Amino acid sequence: MGLIVQKYGGTSVGNAERIRAVAERVVATQRAGNKVAVVVSAMSGETNKLVELARELGGETPPPREYDALVSTGEQKTIALLSMAIQGMGAKASSFNGAQMGFLTDKAHTKARIKSIDADRIHKTLDDGAIAVIAGFQGVDDEGNITTLGRGGSDTSAVAVAAALKADVCEIYTDVAGVFTADPNMVPSAKKLSRISFEEMLELASLGAKVLQLRSVKFAMKYGIPLHVRSSFSDEEGTWVTREEDVMEKLVVSGVTYNRNEAKIRVRGVEDHPGVAATLFTALSEAGFVVDMIVQNMGLDGATDITFTVPRDDYEEALKLSKSVSSKMGAKAVEGDESITKVSIVGLGMKDHAGVASRMFEVLAADGINIQMITTSEIKVSVVIGEKYTELAVRSLHAAFVDDGAEAPVAES
Amino acid sequence: MGLIVQKYGGTSVGNAERIRAVAERVVATQRAGNKVAVVVSAMSGETNKLVELARELGGETPPPREYDALVSTGEQKTIALLSMAIQGMGAKASSFNGAQMGFLTDKAHTKARIKSIDADRIHKTLDDGAIAVIAGFQGVDDEGNITTLGRGGSDTSAVAVAAALKADVCEIYTDVAGVFTADPNMVPSAKKLSRISFEEMLELASLGAKVLQLRSVKFAMKYGIPLHVRSSFSDEEGTWVTREEDVMEKLVVSGVTYNRNEAKIRVRGVEDHPGVAATLFTALSEAGFVVDMIVQNMGLDGATDITFTVPRDDYEEALKLSKSVSSKMGAKAVEGDESITKVSIVGLGMKDHAGVASRMFEVLAADGINIQMITTSEIKVSVVIGEKYTELAVRSLHAAFVDDGAEAPVAES
Repeated sequence: MGLIVQKYGGTSVGNAERIRAVAERVVATQRAGNKVAVVVSAMSGETNKLVELARELGGETPPPREYDALVSTGEQKTIALLSMAIQGMGAKASSFNGAQMGFLTDKAHTKARIKSIDADRIHKTLDDGAIAVIAGFQGVDDEGNITTLGRGGSDTSAVAVAAALKADVCEIYTDVAGVFTADPNMVPSAKKLSRISFEEMLELASLGAKVLQLRSVKFAMKYGIPLHVRSSFSDEEGTWVTREEDVMEKLVVSGVTYNRNEAKIRVRGVEDHPGVAATLFTALSEAGFVVDMIVQNMGLDGATDITFTVPRDDYEEALKLSKSVSSKMGAKAVEGDESITKVSIVGLGMKDHAGVASRMFEVLAADGINIQMITTSEIKVSVVIGEKYTELAVRSLHAAFVDDGAEAPVAES
Repeated sequence: MGLIVQKYGGTSVGNAERIRAVAERVVATQRAGNKVAVVVSAMSGETNKLVELARELGGETPPPREYDALVSTGEQKTIALLSMAIQGMGAKASSFNGAQMGFLTDKAHTKARIKSIDADRIHKTLDDGAIAVIAGFQGVDDEGNITTLGRGGSDTSAVAVAAALKADVCEIYTDVAGVFTADPNMVPSAKKLSRISFEEMLELASLGAKVLQLRSVKFAMKYGIPLHVRSSFSDEEGTWVTREEDVMEKLVVSGVTYNRNEAKIRVRGVEDHPGVAATLFTALSEAGFVVDMIVQNMGLDGATDITFTVPRDDYEEALKLSKSVSSKMGAKAVEGDESITKVSIVGLGMKDHAGVASRMFEVLAADGINIQMITTSEIKVSVVIGEKYTELAVRSLHAAFVDDGAEAPVAES
């Protein structure tokens, strides 16, 4: 029928029994008449053990070439074991590590970028009636040095393999049933989406939804590979991530998401002349801090306030740097706040509906939640609020936009 | 000064602390002015864990291609960790797995034979002032499939690398101080040999001495690579294994060794006509049994007795087969005995001394030990005796030939 790439994460291959369950699913997919290539991660816990050893012998920053050679053994273990299990069920299988499948990357060890994949060898395997079992996360540079794509890179590997093979679909097996309108642990009424666009998924992934790696979604969008996110513990359909034109029902809000991993820094009373913001953000960027939201607003006294967010892990260092830069800029004060959350609503339908943002602000206001920062794009609105309001905000927004979505007083544009 | 290949076994790299100790020795060797290539095994215990997983998922005989892909990760782990440790000490290092160093073998998975090694890449690394850290035990076939040389293959890898690099010496680091005249656990007066010939070492290795893999000694002899067997826990000189002409002191007996892993089968009263032995041994060989010693002797009644030894693990099956073949051959009886030991004396000096074998029989007779079988070669005499006499025989022979070697009444030829 088709050519299917399946990807299984570390939990799905976490022990012998689970590997056997994956083998069963893979073989069943082939016996249903498909060509199947499987991309797998290291068994859960394995990578952490290897990283621990690397720390012991290589210190805080182990030599990257050797680090990649070390951690790539995790996936090689899984592909060999899964191939054995598949063969034990009477099907043909052949394992491929990064070098064997010609998964060529640049030389950026531990965060390599994909250059090309030699699809011929895998096609030959598939044409031969065998299942190709492929190590995720790893590649080789043009000198044969082992590289890795960085944590979570197996999703990206799978999509890249699907693109190289011109697969009909890339199935991402995970421990949840698909993409939900909100975190089901926080919002009991959260619904599994049956279809969502690449654009929406990109926003959700970058706003804190953990079901898919951001980079893999970008890759799938670029090459137009439909993703099917589904549970490795059941047979039910999950969520399809596809081109916008293939998404029938364009929800105004397809997801409410939150991210607690940011912190806010505010630089007050900066003189308002050109280049002020640049001085600050160039310094932060050169120090390696990734700034997310930025809001700049004029105070009554003609001076400017600049507020921005950084990952919470970088908060202390970024605050220190901001203070030192700001004093040179003649700023009045620098304040920080770690107790914030970014809450976002995402939906393709926003393009066609006005008033979504203001309705969002009303919902939050009705709960007495103060909005500290706002950013918007064509298909999302994000606000920063006090961290203690996270659950309340997510539940109220979900109730207003998803549960009662049809009735919500949002004006058609 | 020179080009040195060092090989460290699983115990020597068994944990982070030991890997660090190996790194120190390697770096010290380089700083003394040498080019250094290091060949390492998997950390002790690692291979057993992988084999256990293979059994769980691949059954009793896992698919060999995948088995090799799996177990080869053990050595890849060690080379990455050792390279990290070396770099942490301020020296340059680069790791090479089988594919990366062009360690080409045939396609016989789990027991591959070496075809060639691409010495250029390693030479480049060494010329660049770096230490080459090489995975033992593994290679690739001409299609890039991972192969392994079989258990203990790391010794062979090291010698092959030394031959390819035209190294001055291949140092084999182990948990004993060198090659001893007997098992020191059994014979407290056993002495470490300072020099021994390849021929003697071959006999000792095939007769039960476990310090070196038989295959690696053959390889070293073929390419004339001097081996230096020494302890990874001390700095003292170990035992040099070299060409006969470089062994100054040709001992009559350089080693007394024993092997408890054989069992004896005796086929009695076979009619003595051509092809009788062939029928039996062809059947055994086709069933995969490796027969070691064979003795055939005429009985008084004109019929022949054939006695031979097989590995003890194969005893039950080989006995069954022998019975079935023998009944067709019209043999009178087939008997077996598992409680035997093969005790051997080995020495280059035997070539120039007559009477060594008879002196050996006298020593054993004086202890009341009955000799069941005898085989000899130019530089060794082996006897099969009852297993319970093992210690007594080894100690008495060591006392007669080694401790009192100079005074032994052995006639010069």
